[in-house]
Amino acid sequence: MTEITRADGRAVDQLRPVTIERGWSAHAEGSALISFGGTKVLCTASFTNGVPRWLTGKGKGWVTAEYAMLPRATNSRNDRESIKGKVGGRTHEISRLIGRALRAVVDTKALGENTIVIDCDVLQADGGTRTAAITGAYVALADAIEWGRAKGFVGKNAKALHDSVAAVSVGIIDGEPMLDLAYVEDVRAETDMNVVVTGRGLFVEVQGTAEGAPFDKRELDALLELGVNGCDDLRVAQLAALAEDLA
Amino acid sequence: MTEITRADGRAVDQLRPVTIERGWSAHAEGSALISFGGTKVLCTASFTNGVPRWLTGKGKGWVTAEYAMLPRATNSRNDRESIKGKVGGRTHEISRLIGRALRAVVDTKALGENTIVIDCDVLQADGGTRTAAITGAYVALADAIEWGRAKGFVGKNAKALHDSVAAVSVGIIDGEPMLDLAYVEDVRAETDMNVVVTGRGLFVEVQGTAEGAPFDKRELDALLELGVNGCDDLRVAQLAALAEDLA
Amino acid sequence: MTEITRADGRAVDQLRPVTIERGWSAHAEGSALISFGGTKVLCTASFTNGVPRWLTGKGKGWVTAEYAMLPRATNSRNDRESIKGKVGGRTHEISRLIGRALRAVVDTKALGENTIVIDCDVLQADGGTRTAAITGAYVALADAIEWGRAKGFVGKNAKALHDSVAAVSVGIIDGEPMLDLAYVEDVRAETDMNVVVTGRGLFVEVQGTAEGAPFDKRELDALLELGVNGCDDLRVAQLAALAEDLA
Amino acid sequence: MTEITRADGRAVDQLRPVTIERGWSAHAEGSALISFGGTKVLCTASFTNGVPRWLTGKGKGWVTAEYAMLPRATNSRNDRESIKGKVGGRTHEISRLIGRALRAVVDTKALGENTIVIDCDVLQADGGTRTAAITGAYVALADAIEWGRAKGFVGKNAKALHDSVAAVSVGIIDGEPMLDLAYVEDVRAETDMNVVVTGRGLFVEVQGTAEGAPFDKRELDALLELGVNGCDDLRVAQLAALAEDLA
Amino acid sequence: MTEITRADGRAVDQLRPVTIERGWSAHAEGSALISFGGTKVLCTASFTNGVPRWLTGKGKGWVTAEYAMLPRATNSRNDRESIKGKVGGRTHEISRLIGRALRAVVDTKALGENTIVIDCDVLQADGGTRTAAITGAYVALADAIEWGRAKGFVGKNAKALHDSVAAVSVGIIDGEPMLDLAYVEDVRAETDMNVVVTGRGLFVEVQGTAEGAPFDKRELDALLELGVNGCDDLRVAQLAALAEDLA
Amino acid sequence: MTEITRADGRAVDQLRPVTIERGWSAHAEGSALISFGGTKVLCTASFTNGVPRWLTGKGKGWVTAEYAMLPRATNSRNDRESIKGKVGGRTHEISRLIGRALRAVVDTKALGENTIVIDCDVLQADGGTRTAAITGAYVALADAIEWGRAKGFVGKNAKALHDSVAAVSVGIIDGEPMLDLAYVEDVRAETDMNVVVTGRGLFVEVQGTAEGAPFDKRELDALLELGVNGCDDLRVAQLAALAEDLA
Repeated sequence: MTEITRADGRAVDQLRPVTIERGWSAHAEGSALISFGGTKVLCTASFTNGVPRWLTGKGKGWVTAEYAMLPRATNSRNDRESIKGKVGGRTHEISRLIGRALRAVVDTKALGENTIVIDCDVLQADGGTRTAAITGAYVALADAIEWGRAKGFVGKNAKALHDSVAAVSVGIIDGEPMLDLAYVEDVRAETDMNVVVTGRGLFVEVQGTAEGAPFDKRELDALLELGVNGCDDLRVAQLAALAEDLA
Repeated sequence: MTEITRADGRAVDQLRPVTIERGWSAHAEGSALISFGGTKVLCTASFTNGVPRWLTGKGKGWVTAEYAMLPRATNSRNDRESIKGKVGGRTHEISRLIGRALRAVVDTKALGENTIVIDCDVLQADGGTRTAAITGAYVALADAIEWGRAKGFVGKNAKALHDSVAAVSVGIIDGEPMLDLAYVEDVRAETDMNVVVTGRGLFVEVQGTAEGAPFDKRELDALLELGVNGCDDLRVAQLAALAEDLA
Repeated sequence: MTEITRADGRAVDQLRPVTIERGWSAHAEGSALISFGGTKVLCTASFTNGVPRWLTGKGKGWVTAEYAMLPRATNSRNDRESIKGKVGGRTHEISRLIGRALRAVVDTKALGENTIVIDCDVLQADGGTRTAAITGAYVALADAIEWGRAKGFVGKNAKALHDSVAAVSVGIIDGEPMLDLAYVEDVRAETDMNVVVTGRGLFVEVQGTAEGAPFDKRELDALLELGVNGCDDLRVAQLAALAEDLA
Repeated sequence: MTEITRADGRAVDQLRPVTIERGWSAHAEGSALISFGGTKVLCTASFTNGVPRWLTGKGKGWVTAEYAMLPRATNSRNDRESIKGKVGGRTHEISRLIGRALRAVVDTKALGENTIVIDCDVLQADGGTRTAAITGAYVALADAIEWGRAKGFVGKNAKALHDSVAAVSVGIIDGEPMLDLAYVEDVRAETDMNVVVTGRGLFVEVQGTAEGAPFDKRELDALLELGVNGCDDLRVAQLAALAEDLA
Repeated sequence: MTEITRADGRAVDQLRPVTIERGWSAHAEGSALISFGGTKVLCTASFTNGVPRWLTGKGKGWVTAEYAMLPRATNSRNDRESIKGKVGGRTHEISRLIGRALRAVVDTKALGENTIVIDCDVLQADGGTRTAAITGAYVALADAIEWGRAKGFVGKNAKALHDSVAAVSVGIIDGEPMLDLAYVEDVRAETDMNVVVTGRGLFVEVQGTAEGAPFDKRELDALLELGVNGCDDLRVAQLAALAEDLA
Repeated sequence: MTEITRADGRAVDQLRPVTIERGWSAHAEGSALISFGGTKVLCTASFTNGVPRWLTGKGKGWVTAEYAMLPRATNSRNDRESIKGKVGGRTHEISRLIGRALRAVVDTKALGENTIVIDCDVLQADGGTRTAAITGAYVALADAIEWGRAKGFVGKNAKALHDSVAAVSVGIIDGEPMLDLAYVEDVRAETDMNVVVTGRGLFVEVQGTAEGAPFDKRELDALLELGVNGCDDLRVAQLAALAEDLA
């Protein structure tokens, strides 16, 4: 696309190396340790038969998510939110985003009265933690649903997932739109956007923020295109992980 | 644009009646009671000379915002966050959004080492509270900066605001993109988007979420166009309010 | 009574201008935006059929109140209690006072198993916020009870209110007892008292505090007389507001 | 005064047996374990040289108080406020009352830049805990000031206390005004009042609340008279305690 | 055992004077005010028929404990945990230890579906507060069980306690193992150990910590022997207290 | 030692497979991902030049530790402590234990005015998480100190560590003392003990608890012997990890 090369030698439209260790956890019904370059997120999906009281008897399931960072996931240590006694705004915001992204591809009726709680814990951060979390969480979610099916909690042919979902960050740096920003890029970006896209290429969420100068429609369009293509690459990685045999 | 009429008889590209009572508060350095139809938000701007410790000595100012709702602003009463002992994720998210939106038009160097805290308290809610808050907050902010200039805290010719900013919600209902959703529309929307746009028509923030089915690029474009036009109408209302004499 | 005039030109036994905007809220079952001069309090009454668990099955209703101040209601900004994560002692104390004052005129048996939560939010403060809150809350409460009657939750002829209630502050400044202290007076008062009086002229609550020198019985008697008369004037304003037609 | 006798055989104007174990604590600069019948409150006064930052350099001292109850001080166990993670409204209200009562007799200039924190912990409760706390706290405070004088932190002849202070509850039961209510009386009282009175017989605080029917001026006067006399008896007990030699 | 004498003249294997005021509380079903020298702990046992929900229907009872210190129990004042809004690690740790120690001698089946909550509040601290708490709590627990038996909640012949339990601290100071450390000794100890021992001389808990140099097996053995003997002396004091008549 | 074999085929005095991935974190100054069988703990050591205010100017460093578990580290999901808003007693207790264990081998004077914060986050739990945490934390600590030395914050020849430290759990199951309990063993253990031992074989901490029947001196001795030998095996693993080259 362009000859600009980035700190790590990537092309502007290239993802960092993506790895997905599916089934990392011995306990969770679904799990994946995903990395986008130096960003490593452990995603677990906990399946419970039954739903919260406010949903009981409606024949629908519930999927929710929580995001957090280990204190030394980042370059300098952050105090634990458990010790501060409150969850920060950023944490809340990302947890809600992950939950919405996953629910967009779940058919809660087909899921039946079951609850899946997704935990995304950032073990190491290097930009794009929320998008790695969504991408890995989808794999954990898919496995948890199959676990529920094997146990008879989810109907044999129930299509609880009607699509897949992945996410990636895009941004404009020195006027150039780029895909999947690493931390050193993220802090320099004039505009920062996260896009969440289904396997079919439709938008679930678009969150663009001008960190420096406001942006125009042309820039927005360029970012969206990069994002949609990046999510398509991630879809391929998700499929490959889900195609492997689990021991 | 279309012959579809809405519950309140508006056209799809029409704002609800907008009123801005500038200088509502006897105490705050800037203030505005803004209404978007039944949504009423009291915005105050508190100016203090000096900045938080982490910013001291950098020759820059600071603008931040807090959003909250009165317990009976909505149709049924919500428990107070002060009594629950924690601020909810939604509140955090909106407070952060308002702060980012305003900072996008502030030149913190021109502001000098001064702090402005914006409080947006929703007295009555009928959809679009965060966008009304941003739109009203800009007026309060502008007045607080002028207050600071009159007191000599801000330089006589310092251009602390390099643009204006407004926000509006847009959404797709029964396949039709619509501007400035009232609560009854908001709950039915398949896609819900908030756009924050400067007076010059550039984007500061775009947040689109598929509540039901994911959306495609064409729908996204239609929503953005509606939003940009709506923000332009709001800009006119802001200018009119700022042109009035304050007693 | 005396020729001393006060900062705002009032006589010592004169209330500030009192206005009551009944039915301010589009959502609440009863509401009033009351002002005592520069003090403005939004009072809403939320009616719910049913009572808290600990009261179930006793054939009695429940009335409770919460008081709070917007952060910039006062001359300088106060941090939000939601963000501090705890409700301060003053807030607690006033909430409890308002609740007791209202319950003193409610016949909970006649109210039936219904709950009314009163919220008093100070939008702007200039002394006497708790007394304005009680006085306005009575109006909101009366309307909420009528709402419940219209809906069939309260008996057609049930006398759920056996009296009205109002409150006012009194204090001694430079040795002179005065009615309805504004903020500049309040901070100078040697003795500060709040009296809560029913429409029939009986005491519900008397809270007198020596801020400077302790006070004697003669001073106490003078304050009580001022307070009882002031509450009688407020009773007239309440009646007038309740006599108006609501659109 | 009357022939009515009470559950414990007292006359209506008679205090319960009052004992004051001055110097109970081996660590505190002043302390008293006070009992009003079955109500036992441990009052300690902690003296520190210096004042909170907001008071520094004004040549004045600071006196503040905290009140709490042990979980099983009462007939059935209450959860600890430390475990609930917040201090209740009643606790706050009483702590503030004790602090105001003590400050009313302190000359903070004479005290100099010193801080005294009073802790009143109810070990056993049988009505009147806040009034016992104030009465005992005065003794602890007086000793802490003398400790500070002996250490040279308070001026040799500085009159840091310009009066003494005591408190008692009064109430109307079956139409009869009574002094110093025990718990079984307190729950039956139609009107409940706490009076805080200086050694010279002046009021520091009067807090009367109609628990049942509102009360009139004649009843209020009767209660005040009982209260003033009761506080005079308590003054005698305080003086006797302070006259003893401390080992 | 040795000729070394300690600050208070005790032999190295000698307890401080132990007193147990059984039945101190007028309200609790069992209580004891215990002192180990200057350490004074009020222990109350609150008996309730029924168990927490998670234990319902299992035919077993529940015993739990909470430990706390008054703010001025120590030489300098500590902030209240209720005001800090959280319970500290040390408090948690000791509460859990007391609960485990007591449960070790309770037969929860024989106790039946009843709950006993032990509160240990340190009124004055001079070292060994947790061990005094356990020793006193046993006495309160025994009385609460007998209260439950008298009321018919515990079976007539049910052996709800199969042993007694006591605790003591031991430590090494200047190379010398010593029993029951007072505060001045505790701060100097190289190794500090708490032992919890049943009436039959078996260990319930052994917690040894090197505060300075690590310790070897020989030192550990010496400490354990001192501790077991000290607990045997405490057992005698417990038995004596329980043998007294309660008024 | 015995022919009893355990669920996983180990001898009673045999550790589970131990792996130490030193330098796991790209950001922390020292780190190790340690596993004891299915228990996996990520230990990071964050080095900062300078000490907390209360230690400033004393020429000494500070080492502290925090322990936590990911919500789905265990067989069923636990709520996050950040969301509950408070840190549980168990978490506090273990954090304090880890800190004490490490400080026992640190010479804070030789460390100089530097702070090292150890974070031990359990990614997967299968018994013995606190002992794995201590054992891995020592490796992270050693690397952080070397990092500080390389940066010139720690003296070239300063012996900041005067010994190594490791920890292991031991317990009695069906009367048989066993080393390094896996979760299925831990829940069945009558007595449960954690021993923390230095490289030289001295005790830093001994914490034994009777979960079922109390234990006698002979059993205690058997457990201590097993624990000391187990820690010696762990010392070998630590040395091996520290001998490797870090990329």
